[in-house]
Amino acid sequence: MSEQNLQFVLAERPSGWVEEHHLRLERRALPEPRDGEVLVRNHWLSLDPYMRGRMSDAKSYAEPVALGAVMVGGTAGEVVLSRDPQFKPGDPVVGMLGWQLYGVAAASALRKVDVTRVPLAAYLGPVGMPGVTAWYGLNVICAPKAGETVVVTAASGAVGSVVGQLAKAKGCRTVGVAGGAQKCRYVREELGLDACVDYKAGKLKDDLRAALPGGVDCVFENVGGEIFDTLLTCTNAFGRIALCGMIADYNTTEPYRMRNVRTVLINRLKLQGFIVSEHMDQWPAALGELGALVAGGSLQWRESVAQGLEQAPAAFIGMLKGRNFGKQLVKLI
Amino acid sequence: MSEQNLQFVLAERPSGWVEEHHLRLERRALPEPRDGEVLVRNHWLSLDPYMRGRMSDAKSYAEPVALGAVMVGGTAGEVVLSRDPQFKPGDPVVGMLGWQLYGVAAASALRKVDVTRVPLAAYLGPVGMPGVTAWYGLNVICAPKAGETVVVTAASGAVGSVVGQLAKAKGCRTVGVAGGAQKCRYVREELGLDACVDYKAGKLKDDLRAALPGGVDCVFENVGGEIFDTLLTCTNAFGRIALCGMIADYNTTEPYRMRNVRTVLINRLKLQGFIVSEHMDQWPAALGELGALVAGGSLQWRESVAQGLEQAPAAFIGMLKGRNFGKQLVKLI
Repeated sequence: MSEQNLQFVLAERPSGWVEEHHLRLERRALPEPRDGEVLVRNHWLSLDPYMRGRMSDAKSYAEPVALGAVMVGGTAGEVVLSRDPQFKPGDPVVGMLGWQLYGVAAASALRKVDVTRVPLAAYLGPVGMPGVTAWYGLNVICAPKAGETVVVTAASGAVGSVVGQLAKAKGCRTVGVAGGAQKCRYVREELGLDACVDYKAGKLKDDLRAALPGGVDCVFENVGGEIFDTLLTCTNAFGRIALCGMIADYNTTEPYRMRNVRTVLINRLKLQGFIVSEHMDQWPAALGELGALVAGGSLQWRESVAQGLEQAPAAFIGMLKGRNFGKQLVKLI
Repeated sequence: MSEQNLQFVLAERPSGWVEEHHLRLERRALPEPRDGEVLVRNHWLSLDPYMRGRMSDAKSYAEPVALGAVMVGGTAGEVVLSRDPQFKPGDPVVGMLGWQLYGVAAASALRKVDVTRVPLAAYLGPVGMPGVTAWYGLNVICAPKAGETVVVTAASGAVGSVVGQLAKAKGCRTVGVAGGAQKCRYVREELGLDACVDYKAGKLKDDLRAALPGGVDCVFENVGGEIFDTLLTCTNAFGRIALCGMIADYNTTEPYRMRNVRTVLINRLKLQGFIVSEHMDQWPAALGELGALVAGGSLQWRESVAQGLEQAPAAFIGMLKGRNFGKQLVKLI
């Protein structure tokens, strides 16, 4: 193989918004797999909000990416060269090979996937980390009963769109929050949610109250900030809140200051933060269910695709600003 | 009986701090029990932070006290006249007869207590609602393991003092937060906690960090406001927080604005609000354990006693300002 690898490394730690110069494109020789390792040509790179946290060196649940190291990221691709008997060239695989065209991983860190009924990119979305995140937070933390009301924020996104559809399938009144009329229309008409509140419309509190005449029992929170703070005032007694993301705060040095935490006491709420990678025991069940739903055509999703690795930084910055529509991917081939 | 009843009724709803004119002393004829009811002479009135909430008509977990109605409150006393076969004159009983010398209650709303080894007033403290609150929040929500670190705020108070001693007995490193050197000394030397942070000393964050070199796994939160917000930054991964009270906010019209809620996500915390009266199924086990500890002399507590019903408003206002030391009671006889 005469081809070379291209990769984005972390050049500088952002404070506040990410800018393109925080990442640097580098050309490298193709890496060589050792025994038990596999060389993969990545076809798809997943862009996800958690990556913003990894760019900072503030204390968090995961180690920061080192300066000069390849940016972390979920990938889907094809085996080029295998030095492990479980994989052979051509096998479709998903892994965490990062922002690069080629990557080497231990065989145990790759998962072979079936692309006969589920497209490869879906393994980075509804049948991947975002889907399992939705499944875990909804089923394990919120555990809504039929007839209860569920709200999901970032409802058209990779995680939110799965949350909304799973909640609806459980017989819950399901309300999304999304940014803009177009996303809200998609949430209602294509994902089938009962209502969607456009947080950009400028009357968040009134619109939430109108969409939640009976209050809310479960919140799947991806956004944080004012949206979360306002939702707290709509909660019913014994509500459950799965705190999955607070993207509203990821790019500010001064966090949003919440005034309604007292509702956790007043309404005897359970608020729980989680990271799906800490619940690997749940992944097989979740992926089995999500894969069947996608293969059967009963789970919808939407992708924003950036073309070529070079576009990854701009696509990532756009996603942090809510400019994507659905799962943000980079097509690498 | 020629004696008359004296009672405090809610005269006006406070906004902000309670003042004496919000309550009005009234003289009434003794109430008459009907069939199945019991007339009780109250010996002790319990003063508790939750009463502040009942004075407001803001939406909360319990109905507000009506204007002109007797203020709610837990009481311990002696049966005067019984029209129910389960009770006879002289029986020591606890109930919720409110801020008054005499009260009538349904027999089912009274509990006969054993005062041979536990003093009557303790049934309003460590062997009553405050004790069960401590027991429930610590055992059911926090569920600390030996070796973990537990922090309890308002650590010298009726609830906090029980939390601290129960946590210590479980083999936890146990740290209190209290207001003033005297309360902190009591928390360390008499309750036996490992450390106590004086939040009035003016360097809360530094003092908390110094007292929590290994972070905190469980927080039993009675205070809210800046103390709670700062404690969040000391939490370890998978921490549990029982949110029992937010007295720092009870007397302000503008709540404290919390900046560290993102730690719930970063540290995958569980934060849960609770009201002990909603978990009556747990009371018998809790009261059995707490009664045995008190009777055996292995649970310490402290009382601030105001003498006479007339002193109840001043004692209540003082408690809201943290001037009490331990369980605040009013002696009515």
